[in-house]
Amino acid sequence: MKSYRKELWFNTDKRRQFINITPEVNACLVESGVTEGLVLVNAMHITASVFINDDEAGLHQDYETWLEKLAPEKPHSQYHHNTYEDNADAHMKRQVMGREVVVAITGGQLDFGPWEQIFYGEFDGKRRKRVLIKIIGE
Amino acid sequence: MKSYRKELWFNTDKRRQFINITPEVNACLVESGVTEGLVLVNAMHITASVFINDDEAGLHQDYETWLEKLAPEKPHSQYHHNTYEDNADAHMKRQVMGREVVVAITGGQLDFGPWEQIFYGEFDGKRRKRVLIKIIGE
Amino acid sequence: MKSYRKELWFNTDKRRQFINITPEVNACLVESGVTEGLVLVNAMHITASVFINDDEAGLHQDYETWLEKLAPEKPHSQYHHNTYEDNADAHMKRQVMGREVVVAITGGQLDFGPWEQIFYGEFDGKRRKRVLIKIIGE
Repeated sequence: MKSYRKELWFNTDKRRQFINITPEVNACLVESGVTEGLVLVNAMHITASVFINDDEAGLHQDYETWLEKLAPEKPHSQYHHNTYEDNADAHMKRQVMGREVVVAITGGQLDFGPWEQIFYGEFDGKRRKRVLIKIIGE
Repeated sequence: MKSYRKELWFNTDKRRQFINITPEVNACLVESGVTEGLVLVNAMHITASVFINDDEAGLHQDYETWLEKLAPEKPHSQYHHNTYEDNADAHMKRQVMGREVVVAITGGQLDFGPWEQIFYGEFDGKRRKRVLIKIIGE
Repeated sequence: MKSYRKELWFNTDKRRQFINITPEVNACLVESGVTEGLVLVNAMHITASVFINDDEAGLHQDYETWLEKLAPEKPHSQYHHNTYEDNADAHMKRQVMGREVVVAITGGQLDFGPWEQIFYGEFDGKRRKRVLIKIIGE
């Protein structure tokens, strides 16, 4: 069994932002030499997500509106977590969008449907944060 | 390490529908010959889910009502994504229900609790769509 | 490839409760002898979750309030599932928080960011329920 590990670092301009990281995950796959196996891609921070969906700007705007409706950032004082922090909403948004994805590797490729793309979802940005890519297989 | 891959195809009658795919996943497990490992089951489309829950009709009706409350389909015009599409709500419902499940394989069986069943969750159906089953192990 | 399996049992005092199970998962990792691979941790019941987030009491109180807003327990009669049961809300809360986590194992450790902790999330407790830990790797 082969294994491979890499970290990706981000420092977003905005508090909330979606970044397509499919090219980076593909590059890791090539570097790993694994042709059959699984790749795990996960946020290493608890106020961020890794998820798979469509690379479409309108949809990303809709996600922003929708997540703010489900778990509004403000007023910060509505959350018990926000004593020394202001990011309780980010911990909730991340649960809706998920921490991680596991993707099959087949014939040396990400085994994807037609529109699947991997995103880093930042909900409390403007600081350096990480994603982990772990590949196991042969 | 052994690896195995299969696609399941669906074409639902309704826009939103839940289908129990546990028998199909079990059949793949037998075909794979893997007795210890992991099986990944994921939607290959970004408006559908694979999730594990109860095979109970009342609960599925409750999920339909609840998901429509969290991310209503109509009016279609409320979503920026719906310029040439009408399925923004399906992209949201899928995030709540999840893209994939990873299940342990132990002694040649899906290592399940008493009521766990695997479902395909369709949120924008009436067309051919796929689920991926990938098994790795020994 | 090595594989390892263990069940953790819980019987919570309250209907809804969050329990940090990171020490138990770490102990399994040591026992397994796996230094490179993946660990799957999943609820074996469909009204409970395993998720990764912060071990902070204020946040857990916020999760309780938030999940009750998204999928209220009462009135029980609002759900079709609740004919002989009263736990439809628990099936929904579990979808928001997720069934499982997959964590990378690197150098014999859980490959975690600074604040990641694994929780058992109980939404219909006061009875014996299980979590599965499955490790594969080398």
